[in-house]
Amino acid sequence: MNKYRVTFLPEQKEVEVEAGTTLLQAAEKAGIQINTLCGGEGLCGECRVQVVGGKARADKNAIGFFSKDELQKGFVLACQTKVEDDLQVFVPAKSRAGEEHIITEGTTIAYSEPERVVLHRRPYDPASFFGPLVSKVYLELPEPTLADNTADIERITRELRKKVGRENYEISLACLQNLAEKLRRYDWKVTATVAWHGNIGRILSIEGGDTTDRHYGLAVDVGTTTVVVQLVDMRTGKVMGVEGSHNLQARFGEDVISRMVFACGRGSLDEVHKAIITNINNLLGTLSQSKNVDTNDITAIVAAGNTTMSHFLLRLMPCNIRLEPYVPTATVYPQVIARELGIQIHPQGILEVMPGVASYVGGDIVAGILACGMADKPEIKCLIDVGTNGEIVIGNNEWLVCCSASAGPAFEGGGSRCGMRAARGAIQKVKIHNGQVTYEAIGKTKPRGLCGSGFIDIIYELVRNGIIGPDGKFTGSKDGKRLTDDDDPRYILAFPEETESGEAVSISESEIANLIKSKGAVFAAIKSLADYVGLKFDQLDTIYVAGGFGSSLDITKAVAIGLLPDIDTSRIQFIGNSSVMGARMALLSAHAFEKAIDISKKMTNIELSNYPPFMDEFIAALFLPHTNSSLFPSVHY
Amino acid sequence: MNKYRVTFLPEQKEVEVEAGTTLLQAAEKAGIQINTLCGGEGLCGECRVQVVGGKARADKNAIGFFSKDELQKGFVLACQTKVEDDLQVFVPAKSRAGEEHIITEGTTIAYSEPERVVLHRRPYDPASFFGPLVSKVYLELPEPTLADNTADIERITRELRKKVGRENYEISLACLQNLAEKLRRYDWKVTATVAWHGNIGRILSIEGGDTTDRHYGLAVDVGTTTVVVQLVDMRTGKVMGVEGSHNLQARFGEDVISRMVFACGRGSLDEVHKAIITNINNLLGTLSQSKNVDTNDITAIVAAGNTTMSHFLLRLMPCNIRLEPYVPTATVYPQVIARELGIQIHPQGILEVMPGVASYVGGDIVAGILACGMADKPEIKCLIDVGTNGEIVIGNNEWLVCCSASAGPAFEGGGSRCGMRAARGAIQKVKIHNGQVTYEAIGKTKPRGLCGSGFIDIIYELVRNGIIGPDGKFTGSKDGKRLTDDDDPRYILAFPEETESGEAVSISESEIANLIKSKGAVFAAIKSLADYVGLKFDQLDTIYVAGGFGSSLDITKAVAIGLLPDIDTSRIQFIGNSSVMGARMALLSAHAFEKAIDISKKMTNIELSNYPPFMDEFIAALFLPHTNSSLFPSVHY
Repeated sequence: MNKYRVTFLPEQKEVEVEAGTTLLQAAEKAGIQINTLCGGEGLCGECRVQVVGGKARADKNAIGFFSKDELQKGFVLACQTKVEDDLQVFVPAKSRAGEEHIITEGTTIAYSEPERVVLHRRPYDPASFFGPLVSKVYLELPEPTLADNTADIERITRELRKKVGRENYEISLACLQNLAEKLRRYDWKVTATVAWHGNIGRILSIEGGDTTDRHYGLAVDVGTTTVVVQLVDMRTGKVMGVEGSHNLQARFGEDVISRMVFACGRGSLDEVHKAIITNINNLLGTLSQSKNVDTNDITAIVAAGNTTMSHFLLRLMPCNIRLEPYVPTATVYPQVIARELGIQIHPQGILEVMPGVASYVGGDIVAGILACGMADKPEIKCLIDVGTNGEIVIGNNEWLVCCSASAGPAFEGGGSRCGMRAARGAIQKVKIHNGQVTYEAIGKTKPRGLCGSGFIDIIYELVRNGIIGPDGKFTGSKDGKRLTDDDDPRYILAFPEETESGEAVSISESEIANLIKSKGAVFAAIKSLADYVGLKFDQLDTIYVAGGFGSSLDITKAVAIGLLPDIDTSRIQFIGNSSVMGARMALLSAHAFEKAIDISKKMTNIELSNYPPFMDEFIAALFLPHTNSSLFPSVHY
Repeated sequence: MNKYRVTFLPEQKEVEVEAGTTLLQAAEKAGIQINTLCGGEGLCGECRVQVVGGKARADKNAIGFFSKDELQKGFVLACQTKVEDDLQVFVPAKSRAGEEHIITEGTTIAYSEPERVVLHRRPYDPASFFGPLVSKVYLELPEPTLADNTADIERITRELRKKVGRENYEISLACLQNLAEKLRRYDWKVTATVAWHGNIGRILSIEGGDTTDRHYGLAVDVGTTTVVVQLVDMRTGKVMGVEGSHNLQARFGEDVISRMVFACGRGSLDEVHKAIITNINNLLGTLSQSKNVDTNDITAIVAAGNTTMSHFLLRLMPCNIRLEPYVPTATVYPQVIARELGIQIHPQGILEVMPGVASYVGGDIVAGILACGMADKPEIKCLIDVGTNGEIVIGNNEWLVCCSASAGPAFEGGGSRCGMRAARGAIQKVKIHNGQVTYEAIGKTKPRGLCGSGFIDIIYELVRNGIIGPDGKFTGSKDGKRLTDDDDPRYILAFPEETESGEAVSISESEIANLIKSKGAVFAAIKSLADYVGLKFDQLDTIYVAGGFGSSLDITKAVAIGLLPDIDTSRIQFIGNSSVMGARMALLSAHAFEKAIDISKKMTNIELSNYPPFMDEFIAALFLPHTNSSLFPSVHY
C-alpha cells in the first residue's frame, strides 16, 4: 500500500501514513490534538484544517461547513479527508483540542463569579459555612480503662457529639472493620471524616493523626456543552482552582435530545454515562496535579446539571424525559459513593447531585436559586438562566414558579460558524460607531470567535446602526465593505488579518435569525411566566441573569435587543455560572443542600408546551426588540 | 504402597484406602460423615469410633479422651488413627455429623419457644407487628399525564406516603437505575420492598406486579456453640421452619477466647468470619429448599449473638474484647447489605445485628430483654441467660443493669463425656428414688447423653439421695453398683444396654465439680448484681431463665442446686432460646428493633472483674445449694 508524508503546520511535524488514512488519524500520529466533538463523524465541523500543499479535497458531505472562498483555500474537515498525496496541512488554533482547556486554566474568566453575590456573603455566614457537607474532625480520644471501656466506635461518636454537637452517627462497615487497629496504632489520635445527610452524620473514614489541613471538595457544573469543576478547600471555602472542558458527550449529539435518542436507541446509556465520568476525572486530575492535592483528600462532590445531565451522570434511564408527558426517573437523587460511579476521589467520598424540579427544570436552576438567594426573602425576584434551554424562575421565600423554553445553543457560542464559548480570544464586547468597528476579546488577544455577550453586543450594534432592520435582515444600506454577498450574507466583524487564525470573525443573516429566535424564546418564557402569576415586570424586585455568556454581559444591550424585560437596569444583575456557584454553596453547607431540596420541592413547574399563550408570545418576540414596542418603552435605536 | 480395606458398621460400607490414611478420611470416602468440631486436629474428641476388627490403637495424645475400659474395647479418635490393617469400625450415632441436624429438623424441640411469652402477645400487637423491619407494599400507580408528570420515584414515594403513612424515603442507586423501564413494563403496577431504618424508608427493590405474598425473613441466633436460623413469613409473622447446627467456628476453638486468639494470632479473622457465613448459608439453604422459598424473596435478617460472635459475623476486629479493659469495636452495628458479606438472600436484602452493651454483654442478651418484655413495665425483673457465659440483667422500664460471668459450657452439654446439646436422645429429666433411676430422653428414644436440664436434675437427685454430698463428692455410701472405681469415679445413669450407642451415660466427680463451678458463677453473678443495686431476691417480680438447657427446665431443682435464687418458683419462668426470639421480634417490628437499640443504650454494665465482692460470692456458691444456707431457706435435701 502506498505511503505518503503529511507535514503539519506551523509545527512542521512530519509523519508517514498509509494511503486512506484520515488527516485526523495522521494528526494523532503526529501528536497534534484536533477537536472532534462528534467523534470524527463529520457532524460538528470542529476539525477544520487547511491543506496548503499537495492534493486533497473536502468530502462532499463536508462542503456545507465552508464558504466558497474557504473551499478554494483548501479548507477541509480533518476527519473526513483521506490522505492520497504528500500533504502540507495548516491546523488553525481554533481546531486544536485542549487549546481552550489550557487557556481556561490561565484565565478562568468564563467561570469567574461576581464575588459580591456569594463568596463573601454566604459561605462565610457561620450558620451555613461551618457545616460543610463533609467535615473532618480531629479527635484526641481518652484511652479506654475498665471504668470507661465503651466500644471503639462509641468512643468516637461520644467525642464527635462533644465537638460537633450533633447526635446521630452512622459508620460504613468498611470503615468499622479496621477501626480497632487504627485507633491503637495512632494512639487514639485520629481524624474522622463525616458526611452530613439529614440529621445523620455518616463517618466515611478514620485517619491516623490530624489530617484536617488536607480536605477538599469539588463543585461541578455538568452543562450540556461544557463541564466545569471547581476544587474547593473545605476548611476555608476558598476555590483553589477551576477547570472547564467541552462535555465529551457531544460526540453522541449536541443537545440533550439527540443524546437521549442515542442512549435510548442505537447507542447505549453506558457510553454516555462514562463520557461524563471521564470528563470529571480528567478535570479533577488536572486540578489535583496542578494544585498538588491528593485525590484521596477529596471527600465530597456536589454536581449540578439539568435533569438529563443529572440522569446521565448517575446512569439513570433518561428516555422518558424527551417523550410527552416528560417524566424523569428522579428529580431528587440519592447520595452516592463517588467511586461506585468510577469517580476517582476518596474511596468512601460522596457525590450529591443537586435536586431538580422536572424534566426541563433541573438541579442547575435550583443551584442558581440557592446562589442568588431569591428564596431567602419576601421580595419577588426572577432568575433567568440562559443556556441551550432558557429556564426562568419567579418567586420569593414563600413560593416559586418556573418554566423552561428551548433557546438553542446560540448564546453559548454554539450553532454558528464563529461562535465559541467564553474563553481566551472570544469577542465579548463590540461597538460600531460611524462605520468603525471596535471589539474586545477575552484575554486582550487577537480574536478567535464570538461568545454570548459578544453576540448580544453585535446584534444591538447592527440594529442601532441600521445595518440590520428590526426583523434581523441586512438592510444593505451601510457598511457594504463588511458585508459578503453569499447566499447567506455575512457581516465581517474582524477581518482575517486581525484574527489569530487568519480567518474572519463574522455573523450571517441566518445566524442572526437564530439569535433572534433564541432571545425570543427566552423573553416569551419570562413573559408567559410573569403573566401566569399575574405580575408586571416592574413588580420584580431584581432580575438575576445567569449563563455562559462570558465574563460580563451588557445588561442595557440585552434589554435593547429584547432578551431581558425593560426594567430599570440597576435592578438586573448578571451572576455568571450560578450552577457551579450553587453547587459550591451546597458543598460548603449541608444546610444549604437541605435548603436546595426544600426549594426543589417548593417549586411549581409550568409546562410551556401545555400553556397555549407561550407560542403567541414567542412569535411576537421574533423582532428587535419586540413586535409590541410598548413592552420596551426605554428602547430606541 | 499397601492398601487396606476398612468396613464401617453398622452400614457394612467397605472402602479400600492406602496405608496411613486416617479413619476420618476413610469414612469420608465411604460417605459416612463423622463429627470434626476441631477440624481433625485431635482436640475435640467428637470423632470417637470403635475398632471391632483388625489392629488399630488410639494415638497416645488421644488417650485422655477414653476410659481404660473404652481403650480396651478399641475406641479411638477417627482423625488421629491411621489405617495400617484391614479394619472393621463401628461408628456410634453420637459421632456422626449431621445426625443432630437431621434430628433437629424433625423435632425442633431445642428451639421451641414458650408461645405464651412472645408469639401471641407481641408480634401480633398491631403497633409493632404491622411495621416489620422490611415490608412489601403493592402499588397501583396512576399513569403520568402532562398535568401530573412528577418523577417516577416521586410517584412511588407519593403512593407509599398514602398507603404506609410515613414521610421519608430513600432509594439505592441500583434500584433507581432501572426503575423507569420497570414501571412501564409492568404497567405501573409494582411491589416496593422497603426497609425501615430510623425514620427513613429505604426502597430496596421494585418488582413488577403484586409479589406481596412472597416475603420472608430470617431470625438468627449466632451462638458460640450452635447457630439457629428461623425462616419467618413476613406477612404473618409465622415461623415456617427452623434449623440449627454446630457453629463451624468450633474448629478454631471451642470458646470465644480461643477463637479470638486464633483470629488475632496464627489464624485469620477471615476464616472465622467465613465459617459463620457458611453456617448461615447452609441453614438458610436447607430451610428455603424444604419450605420451597426462593432465597431472593428473603429480604431481611436479624442476627443476635454475643459481642464476639457479632464481631465475627460482621468481620470486625474482635481482638480487644479479650484484653483488659475489654473494648469491642462496636456494640451497635451498621445496617449491612447481606450479600456484601456473602449471605445468599435478596441482592439488596439487609442484615441487622442486634445491638449489645459491652464485650461480654451482647446482642443475644438485648434480644432476650426484648423477648421477655422486662423493659416494658415498672416491675423490677431479672433475666438470666445461661450459656458459656452467664449473663444477668436486672431492671425495668426505667433502668437496667447487667453483668456477665464465665460459666463454662457445662449447661450447654459441653466439657463432659456424655454432655450433648438438647437434641433427640438427650436425657432432659432424671429421677432417683429408692435406688431406682428413671429418666426421659428428648424424642422418647434410647438415651444418647445428657443436656443441661438433665445435668441439673441429676445433680439435684444425687445430692437429695445422699449419693454426693453438698460438696459434690461421692459419699460412696449408696448405689455402689452404679459407681465406677475410676480415678475420677463416675455415676452411671444409663447402662450400656439401655443406650442407643451401647455406651453408658454417666457423670463423673470432676464433671460434677465443673457443674458446681458453673452454677456457682451464675449464682454469684446474680447475687453480686442484686447487691450492687441494693435489692433482695424477693423484690424481683419475675426471674426469666434463658439458655440451651433443653426444652424444659425443672425450676425447683435449679433452685435446689443453688443455680437460681430461692424465691417463689411461680415467679421463675424458663423461656428457652430468647436470643432467636428477640431477633424475630426485631425482624417483625422495626419499632422493636429501635427499642432494642434504646435498651442497649440504657443498660449499665458492671464489670465483675472490676467488682471485688464477686470472687467471694463465687467461692461461697461452690456448695450445694450454697455455703450460706440462709439464702436457700426452702431447700432441704
